[in-house]
Amino acid sequence: MVMKVYGSALSTAAMRVFAALYEKDLQFELVPVNMGAGEHKKEHFLALNPFGQVPAFEDGDLKLFESRAITQYIAHEYADKGAPLVCEGKPMATVGVWIEVEAHQFDPVASKLQWELVFKPLFGMAVDAETVKENEAKLAKVLDVYEARLGQSKYLGCDCFTLADLHHIPTLSNLMGTPLKELFEARPKVSAWAADIMGRPAWAKVLAMRNQQ
Amino acid sequence: MVMKVYGSALSTAAMRVFAALYEKDLQFELVPVNMGAGEHKKEHFLALNPFGQVPAFEDGDLKLFESRAITQYIAHEYADKGAPLVCEGKPMATVGVWIEVEAHQFDPVASKLQWELVFKPLFGMAVDAETVKENEAKLAKVLDVYEARLGQSKYLGCDCFTLADLHHIPTLSNLMGTPLKELFEARPKVSAWAADIMGRPAWAKVLAMRNQQ
Repeated sequence: MVMKVYGSALSTAAMRVFAALYEKDLQFELVPVNMGAGEHKKEHFLALNPFGQVPAFEDGDLKLFESRAITQYIAHEYADKGAPLVCEGKPMATVGVWIEVEAHQFDPVASKLQWELVFKPLFGMAVDAETVKENEAKLAKVLDVYEARLGQSKYLGCDCFTLADLHHIPTLSNLMGTPLKELFEARPKVSAWAADIMGRPAWAKVLAMRNQQ
Repeated sequence: MVMKVYGSALSTAAMRVFAALYEKDLQFELVPVNMGAGEHKKEHFLALNPFGQVPAFEDGDLKLFESRAITQYIAHEYADKGAPLVCEGKPMATVGVWIEVEAHQFDPVASKLQWELVFKPLFGMAVDAETVKENEAKLAKVLDVYEARLGQSKYLGCDCFTLADLHHIPTLSNLMGTPLKELFEARPKVSAWAADIMGRPAWAKVLAMRNQQ
C-alpha cells in the first residue's frame, strides 16, 4: 500500500515531508485537504490529526502527524533507501542538536517573517512593519550562529546533508523570494549552504509538484 | 569523567535534562551559570551554546545544547540504564509525534503562561491579563486533545512513560502552582497523568536539587 500524505503542496510543513519522501525515492500519494473550505478542522481530518493541521501521514496501519516526526520516521524506517538523512551514534546526537535549533531558534522567527512577507501579501493583508523589523534582527543573529557553525562542518549537523538541513528548506526557500534574501547573501557560508540544499533534486521535485497545483 | 550540565536548577529547560539523568540513574555535575550576572551571554558559555541559553551539556568530548536534544542523547546512549524513555521501531514513531506535540503545541502556550503567572510575579512585574486569557483558551484546547489521547494509551506516546511525557514535567509542575491547575483537574485523564508523571522519584530528586539552591 502506497504511503499517503494528507495536505497541500503549498503548505511548508507538508513540503518538509515531500522533500524527505523524494530524498528517499519513495512512492506516495498526496491526498489534497482543502484548507480554504476548512476541511482540516472537520471530523474526518481530525481523526488523522486532532490538532487540525496539515500534514497527516499514513504508512499502512501507521498514522502520524507533526511534520518533523514524519520525516524522522521516514529517515529511520527507510534508512537503506536514497539519501541517509540521519546517522548513527554520537554524530547523530549533534545532528539532533541542530534539528532542535531549526525547530526552536530558526523556525519561530522565520515563520513569523514568512507570514508577514509571503502569505499576508498573497492574501491582500497589510504587513506589520514592526514585527518584520523585530524578527529580521532576530533572524540575523540566528544566521550569525549558522555562519560560524558552517565554518566547522559542511552542513549544520555534520559533513553530510541530514534532516537538520532538510527541515529548513521550505521556509528558507520562501524567504529567499523576499528582500530578506540579503540577510542570507551577506553571509558567504550560509549563502553557499542555502544554495546547496535548495539545489537538491528532491527539492526540485517538491517545487514541480507545487507548481502543478 | 562525570557528565556536566551547565545551567541553573531553576531553569525549566535544565530541569528537563536533570529529570532524564535521574530517570537513568546517571551521575552528573551541575555547573552553575549565573544568569542574573549575564554569564550565559559571555564568551566562555557561548562556546558551549552559541545561542546563549541554558542548559549546555558535556559527556566526555561530546558537547551538546538544546534540552530536548540532550534528553534524546541520554535516552539512546544509556538505553540499558534506568527507565527506558524511548522504544524501538513503529511505536517510537508515535512517541516521536507526541514529542513534537509537546514542543509545538503544548510548550509555546504553556511557556507564555508560565512567564505571566510564575516568573513575572517572582520578578515583581505586572501580569498581562489579555495574554493569559488568550493562552489559557489555547491550553484548554491542547488539554482536550490530551484527554482524548490518554483514553487510548496510558501515557502520551504509548503505554510506557517516555520522553514525550518527561519533556512536559518542568513547565507542567510550575503551572500546577497557579490557578491554571483547574484546567488540568477538570480533565480526569489529564489530571491522573499529571499526578503520575510528577510523582516519579526522578522528579522528586529534581525538586530536591532546586530546593537546595
